[in-house]
Amino acid sequence: MKLITYLYKNEKKFGLVSENGVVDLTAKIPAKDLKNLIELNLLDRVKQFKNDQPDYKIEEIKLLPVIENPDKIFCAGVNYDDHRLETNRDVTANPTIFFRVAQSQIAHNDPMLIPIESDRLDFEGEIAIVISKEGRRIPEEDAYDYIAGYSIYNDGSVRDYQLHTSQWGPGKNFEATGAFGPWLVTKDEIADGEVLTLETRLNGQVMQKADTNLLLFSIPELIAYCSTFTTLKAGDVIVTGTPGGVGAKRKPPVFMKDGDKIEVEVSKIGILTNPVKQEI
Amino acid sequence: MKLITYLYKNEKKFGLVSENGVVDLTAKIPAKDLKNLIELNLLDRVKQFKNDQPDYKIEEIKLLPVIENPDKIFCAGVNYDDHRLETNRDVTANPTIFFRVAQSQIAHNDPMLIPIESDRLDFEGEIAIVISKEGRRIPEEDAYDYIAGYSIYNDGSVRDYQLHTSQWGPGKNFEATGAFGPWLVTKDEIADGEVLTLETRLNGQVMQKADTNLLLFSIPELIAYCSTFTTLKAGDVIVTGTPGGVGAKRKPPVFMKDGDKIEVEVSKIGILTNPVKQEI
Repeated sequence: MKLITYLYKNEKKFGLVSENGVVDLTAKIPAKDLKNLIELNLLDRVKQFKNDQPDYKIEEIKLLPVIENPDKIFCAGVNYDDHRLETNRDVTANPTIFFRVAQSQIAHNDPMLIPIESDRLDFEGEIAIVISKEGRRIPEEDAYDYIAGYSIYNDGSVRDYQLHTSQWGPGKNFEATGAFGPWLVTKDEIADGEVLTLETRLNGQVMQKADTNLLLFSIPELIAYCSTFTTLKAGDVIVTGTPGGVGAKRKPPVFMKDGDKIEVEVSKIGILTNPVKQEI
Repeated sequence: MKLITYLYKNEKKFGLVSENGVVDLTAKIPAKDLKNLIELNLLDRVKQFKNDQPDYKIEEIKLLPVIENPDKIFCAGVNYDDHRLETNRDVTANPTIFFRVAQSQIAHNDPMLIPIESDRLDFEGEIAIVISKEGRRIPEEDAYDYIAGYSIYNDGSVRDYQLHTSQWGPGKNFEATGAFGPWLVTKDEIADGEVLTLETRLNGQVMQKADTNLLLFSIPELIAYCSTFTTLKAGDVIVTGTPGGVGAKRKPPVFMKDGDKIEVEVSKIGILTNPVKQEI
């Protein structure tokens, strides 16, 4: 199932996307939003509405970030070897983890903003996982039990701000740079450990391409590591890292500009598309 | 005024601390919690209750982190020169900013936990500011208008996890390591730019001591910089950095151990005290 958070006539709702349109779940499932639905362990209950007549056409709604208000957004850095090499980073025995704040998120089709302070907004196509339930010190072998589903993230990075100091937070948290969507593909649709293929395209040109079997730290390893130091909660997001090919490391460098279209496609999930807009 | 978030007989409340005890504000001010009170711009309304008869003795309540659920907790790293030198970090033209998650917070008197994964829990005494209202791209000269008040933070750091990779997030976000309290001293009690003195004591022995005029990036500079990339919101916390003298850089290194008492005292604010406890 493809679950979404969206606006219909300015009302915030959650629902599922079928072939024919959008089934509104807001009145059918007693949850405040998609995060709350996961928290309440009601994902199974959604299935019965899978073949319902759609309430809206997909064109009638406006998507919002899959989870608008995650308690935590963990981002894995340097998690594909080709990206590690292009950024001259050392091999590490543990995952590189930094945080994104929910406020930096945008949805599928929302403009990704080049801030007035910089001309170095770069793309980072990534696979995101959404956590299903609370857990601390989760063993790798149990990690898949803690996944509600999969989605796509574009971890838009303002490179000069990212490298102002040793800590990447500022460059990773500009408003309207973290694209998250279009939907959550529930875990039952992707086998544990199934290889997914990721491709990032800028104006149709392939910029990044990789398989999840190239991840330096696998999805279970990321879940195990993050849950070592903090309790994962339902709706938490782990953004699993970007492969090589980012704009900043190309020769010459390629940064996104007003009017560009950036797409991240992941097999079995879909395509996350964002227009790029210069903030004025 | 000294504003607090606390439990009384397991009920969550907010109030003010006077010489004689605690004035419960929960029923007097129409706000959900202290963050919401600030959001609703009701700080001025608190003043009329300043001399009310206290409802509880301070011993009858259990303090909670000053703001339990900040939207964002920004931490400034390497923001005193003696700490920069002891950690061999370069001078940077911009502040070093990383994030702490709310879930890592504890209150005054709560045990700071040495996790089972590490024996390198270190103290970092710091001054915290709480943001009063929403703002983006705040000019330095207006920054003090965005401060609701001041508090104390102990940015407890698990040093081996902090240095697993280039990004400090994991070592800065272990559960029960970020002590925040005891209260919020409202801005009217501290003049803009007034020099505050900070002292960290481990079992009574002075480990860190510095004045805020030694900050590499001043409080207005931190507010201006953080608000460049994201919109500050009421209740957001900026933890302004720790001076030299951290345990990890002593010869020999000093890490906190079960049964220790760690205190951070800041002039005009008070003393944040936490027992140290080994997690088992």
